[in-house]
Amino acid sequence: MSGIIRVGVIGGMAYTARELLRWLLVHPRVKITVVTSDSSAGKPLVGAHRVFSGQIRKDFLFSSFNPAVLAKSCDVVFLCLPHAESAKRAAVLLNAGLKVIDLSADFRLNSPAVYEKWYANKHPCPELLKEAVYGLPELFRKDIPKARLIANPGCYATTAILSAAPLLSNGWADGQGIIVDAKSGVSGAGRKLDARYLFGQTHENFLAYGVAQHRHMPEIDQILTRVLGKKQAGKKVEITFVPHLLPVHRGILATSYLPLKRAYDAGQIQARYATFYANEPFVEVLPLGQFPELAEVQGTNFVRMGIKVTKNGRLAIVVAVLDNLAKGASSQAVQNMNLLFGLEETLALGGQAN
Amino acid sequence: MSGIIRVGVIGGMAYTARELLRWLLVHPRVKITVVTSDSSAGKPLVGAHRVFSGQIRKDFLFSSFNPAVLAKSCDVVFLCLPHAESAKRAAVLLNAGLKVIDLSADFRLNSPAVYEKWYANKHPCPELLKEAVYGLPELFRKDIPKARLIANPGCYATTAILSAAPLLSNGWADGQGIIVDAKSGVSGAGRKLDARYLFGQTHENFLAYGVAQHRHMPEIDQILTRVLGKKQAGKKVEITFVPHLLPVHRGILATSYLPLKRAYDAGQIQARYATFYANEPFVEVLPLGQFPELAEVQGTNFVRMGIKVTKNGRLAIVVAVLDNLAKGASSQAVQNMNLLFGLEETLALGGQAN
Amino acid sequence: MSGIIRVGVIGGMAYTARELLRWLLVHPRVKITVVTSDSSAGKPLVGAHRVFSGQIRKDFLFSSFNPAVLAKSCDVVFLCLPHAESAKRAAVLLNAGLKVIDLSADFRLNSPAVYEKWYANKHPCPELLKEAVYGLPELFRKDIPKARLIANPGCYATTAILSAAPLLSNGWADGQGIIVDAKSGVSGAGRKLDARYLFGQTHENFLAYGVAQHRHMPEIDQILTRVLGKKQAGKKVEITFVPHLLPVHRGILATSYLPLKRAYDAGQIQARYATFYANEPFVEVLPLGQFPELAEVQGTNFVRMGIKVTKNGRLAIVVAVLDNLAKGASSQAVQNMNLLFGLEETLALGGQAN
Amino acid sequence: MSGIIRVGVIGGMAYTARELLRWLLVHPRVKITVVTSDSSAGKPLVGAHRVFSGQIRKDFLFSSFNPAVLAKSCDVVFLCLPHAESAKRAAVLLNAGLKVIDLSADFRLNSPAVYEKWYANKHPCPELLKEAVYGLPELFRKDIPKARLIANPGCYATTAILSAAPLLSNGWADGQGIIVDAKSGVSGAGRKLDARYLFGQTHENFLAYGVAQHRHMPEIDQILTRVLGKKQAGKKVEITFVPHLLPVHRGILATSYLPLKRAYDAGQIQARYATFYANEPFVEVLPLGQFPELAEVQGTNFVRMGIKVTKNGRLAIVVAVLDNLAKGASSQAVQNMNLLFGLEETLALGGQAN
Repeated sequence: MSGIIRVGVIGGMAYTARELLRWLLVHPRVKITVVTSDSSAGKPLVGAHRVFSGQIRKDFLFSSFNPAVLAKSCDVVFLCLPHAESAKRAAVLLNAGLKVIDLSADFRLNSPAVYEKWYANKHPCPELLKEAVYGLPELFRKDIPKARLIANPGCYATTAILSAAPLLSNGWADGQGIIVDAKSGVSGAGRKLDARYLFGQTHENFLAYGVAQHRHMPEIDQILTRVLGKKQAGKKVEITFVPHLLPVHRGILATSYLPLKRAYDAGQIQARYATFYANEPFVEVLPLGQFPELAEVQGTNFVRMGIKVTKNGRLAIVVAVLDNLAKGASSQAVQNMNLLFGLEETLALGGQAN
Repeated sequence: MSGIIRVGVIGGMAYTARELLRWLLVHPRVKITVVTSDSSAGKPLVGAHRVFSGQIRKDFLFSSFNPAVLAKSCDVVFLCLPHAESAKRAAVLLNAGLKVIDLSADFRLNSPAVYEKWYANKHPCPELLKEAVYGLPELFRKDIPKARLIANPGCYATTAILSAAPLLSNGWADGQGIIVDAKSGVSGAGRKLDARYLFGQTHENFLAYGVAQHRHMPEIDQILTRVLGKKQAGKKVEITFVPHLLPVHRGILATSYLPLKRAYDAGQIQARYATFYANEPFVEVLPLGQFPELAEVQGTNFVRMGIKVTKNGRLAIVVAVLDNLAKGASSQAVQNMNLLFGLEETLALGGQAN
Repeated sequence: MSGIIRVGVIGGMAYTARELLRWLLVHPRVKITVVTSDSSAGKPLVGAHRVFSGQIRKDFLFSSFNPAVLAKSCDVVFLCLPHAESAKRAAVLLNAGLKVIDLSADFRLNSPAVYEKWYANKHPCPELLKEAVYGLPELFRKDIPKARLIANPGCYATTAILSAAPLLSNGWADGQGIIVDAKSGVSGAGRKLDARYLFGQTHENFLAYGVAQHRHMPEIDQILTRVLGKKQAGKKVEITFVPHLLPVHRGILATSYLPLKRAYDAGQIQARYATFYANEPFVEVLPLGQFPELAEVQGTNFVRMGIKVTKNGRLAIVVAVLDNLAKGASSQAVQNMNLLFGLEETLALGGQAN
Repeated sequence: MSGIIRVGVIGGMAYTARELLRWLLVHPRVKITVVTSDSSAGKPLVGAHRVFSGQIRKDFLFSSFNPAVLAKSCDVVFLCLPHAESAKRAAVLLNAGLKVIDLSADFRLNSPAVYEKWYANKHPCPELLKEAVYGLPELFRKDIPKARLIANPGCYATTAILSAAPLLSNGWADGQGIIVDAKSGVSGAGRKLDARYLFGQTHENFLAYGVAQHRHMPEIDQILTRVLGKKQAGKKVEITFVPHLLPVHRGILATSYLPLKRAYDAGQIQARYATFYANEPFVEVLPLGQFPELAEVQGTNFVRMGIKVTKNGRLAIVVAVLDNLAKGASSQAVQNMNLLFGLEETLALGGQAN
């Protein structure tokens, strides 16, 4: 496809929206036509997101949410809304003929019952769950171009799934006993005005939360179960997931502990990961002995992993980093848009230079 | 014992020394008589540690290391030295008749071979390894008063050992498959002038290091093996230990994953911990559903723990916090000193007030 | 006076209250009898201030505000309340016969009109303004013991006033053209749930606020005008005050620019400051060429200053640091309490040791 | 000019080099042909700057410094070297026929004597000082295209000069009594392995340094003296400059205090600034009552300013922010390159979008 893609952003005050705008503003094939905000409609966008001053016209205003207008002026819309709210609007926008990339959790789980259990309300449009494509290009690249509705993965889920997939898909691990000890920057919580996220509660602090009961756990289980090799058909992955809150803005580091079905040496495991991701433009597996740091991926669409195996060869340790706002949300959404519109997948996301 | 304890601090420029001085200066039974520093001998102590300005006389100078002088002017000395260096001086000071509390790693491992493997040099005085008492009062309180030489535990080791001891000592866990995912503030590295610890490399960053090969791992294994209940005699604990570097000054949070021999519910595990530490003045086990934060224990000698059990009842998750410079080093050293001199264990360390 | 001082803390959820409790808990002559909180009455204090776990009995509960009970069980109360609210309760408590140390701004300004202008409401009990003693011991030490009502100074005001007093009191400066460029940690704002104080808005950020129109400006002007030497009687000090928000928890650093009436060299100015504060236990003037850092005074009751004079000798630059929660609020309140009850001024506040 | 500009970066390990590469890698008209590093020659660039992994070929190696090779393969070179070293190599590269943009301080001062006083060594090639163009486009845009050698301004200097220029150039201020109280992130110090920049010394800390004797002071004085309006010919600007070290990575906020020759109201001053910078793509003057924050400009080439005037109308207060690594160094260098090669000045630096 050639020409310009006209893009709408719904929920334009959210951190994910701001980050999405950052990527879209430098995308050579994108024109941002509408940015909606229920609370700020009619106000200038640069007033809320002063970092874009000079990059966006001063008279570019937040719009209110109007499906008819959006349908006329956009080819695709990104939803940066709280869950439940997102699903309701997605249904309306799909009916209006738009393609939808949803950054909320609403279309990630394929079971309405599981959704209701973890998100505490009935799914507003369960009939769309089957249609939604899980927008993790590394695993579901082929499904994305045909989608009308893309469920952009959770930030923790992206990290955990990519950390485990190589060993589950070839059967070296069977998905039992996996522990994911994850640490996320504060922006994972968005712009919420909650005392927990005050500077005074977060700076020079660290804590675990949602211990073994975080909402991304069922999302990870569901996708990793799909990843299981054919010989393991019928089995279910159930991970133990413990997230922690880091005193940084951006980034997730997840340390995954993966029991192996028999002993492997570190070289074998590293080679398996390196092979699995060999053609992935945004996943890099480090040589043995190297581990990635948060700072390496902040502001980028990249995932990086380091591998270790315990002395007895029965436990693989995978340390993976990504930027929760970027590959864990907004730049991954742009990656999905690129695939959806037949563009080069890496366009405007960083890529081999010079 | 009554009267004043005359205290010497060896290696007075170290972070642990500074923290130790902080505790000693408000101890009603302590007089700091000598603080040595090879590099700063003859210079005023408040010049190096300006935070004590007003608390220590301006003309209190760092001394050079002189065992004879120390023997005359001290009842006990604390060693805040790099490993190997510490053992050499400990031997000299013991010969001079002093009691020694060593904050280095030199007397924590009881096998010279294991020491040599992890610390890359021959132990300077292996004959003292048997005599040294491991100064973790919660487990070895009775041994401490009789000691000449106390090996003050490592910060990670204190956290991990206290997190696992209740389940190993009663046999609910057998010490196999334990994973300790630990996160420490930067002060754990001391005052080292290493590019890794520059603000520009640490702030807004997070990383794993020493993945499954950190020096505290054998220390934890050795002590937890001693903790194993009698029915498990002959077994050896081998944990998987992965430390991470937090962008905070002080504090360790360790998330321990402990496989259980059969299914227990969370109430049983919490009760076991609460009972095990019921009489401990500095260990607090939280009610189910609560987890501790770093900020709660910074600057204190306290350890706090929260408990979770996975749905299938086969994995206990223990989140524990302490201050690596305090309970993980200097205030624990003072706790050991209190025991060594027959003082109230909690003296000057905070305790039931009013 | 001998015996124990029974202390009440009003508004026990505030940051200043927490800090005050930290100091009071280690004060050998204090018994904390009541801590009130309108929102948390009946709940355990250690639930809100978990850092005191182990230091305060678990069954010590927040009380509701009851002047009769307070009068019976306290010798003095500290008010850690928002302005206006504080004055109302102060009046009631004074009537009940209590001594009051007020940490709010309500009794710092001696003019009801100025108060109304800056605090946007009529003063609830203007008749008390004359009686209140401004609790800055370095300037008004003699007035404090006789007071019923002490107005504990503002954190910025303490810093700015102590930075300028030596030159105004001897007439080397006349109080015209003084600029105070101040930088404060986030705790200066208390526990307020305001988006500005979210981690995401504060970390890795810095900003000016209340530029030349901050509420501490009239407080500084009023006190510095009192400080002016006799030859300057009738003159009024009017400073330019610009506060900034630092991404740290605790501490204020103020850089004051003081025009001199004629040229002085740096040695003269430094000597003037050193002499002026020679007998002050908590103010330290550094030698020429040295400047203090925030970290030196965090958690302490100390103020430290470094001095510079510009090449032409006409402008003194004073860099001063203190801890806004300690000398800028709670430990200064304890210092005032010590004076009020005839105790040694430095008791439990750190002082010459060993 | 059309076609691709072949660019060399000298001193490729520096923070400024890394930042420069970040900008150059997304510049549509630039090909990075050589990056030199004396210490890392022969090693892969992505090993040192892992953030570019995926953006730069893994086999792109640091080169050693070879003027002949550089002359053949580059149209322009950027110098990211320590002062003195930079001037030496600049001379060689100019002789080899290259255009040079120097990010060091070596060609900013036009007097060898002043250089020697502040940089403690004789200038290696004083004859080039006259030729060098001071690369601040907002003031010297016309001189840049013809230059062989551009002295890229200091980060503090850029902030201070742009803050004062509007009032000096029209004579509302005469340059006497100006105070610039500046606060910079730690990256201003580059990658220096100095204990002052350890996390443990910087985090949760703040301090003044180089009080009224920082090297950028003469640079500011020199340029502002050139800015003085014609009526003030012969006068010299001498500012008082006090820099401080913020616990953030990136960004400078400078609060400038500018005495006015007569009383003006705030509206007049704001209008003067708004007019002066009306056509500047990268300088934004905020409406009265608004002040900028560091976070708004981090990672961008923008400068933003807020204005206040004191009650008596005689002192203008200007709060300005920029990113010390970007507009204060590397993106300003790219802006200079754009001008030098006749490209659109804003190319690849952010600009009016959509």
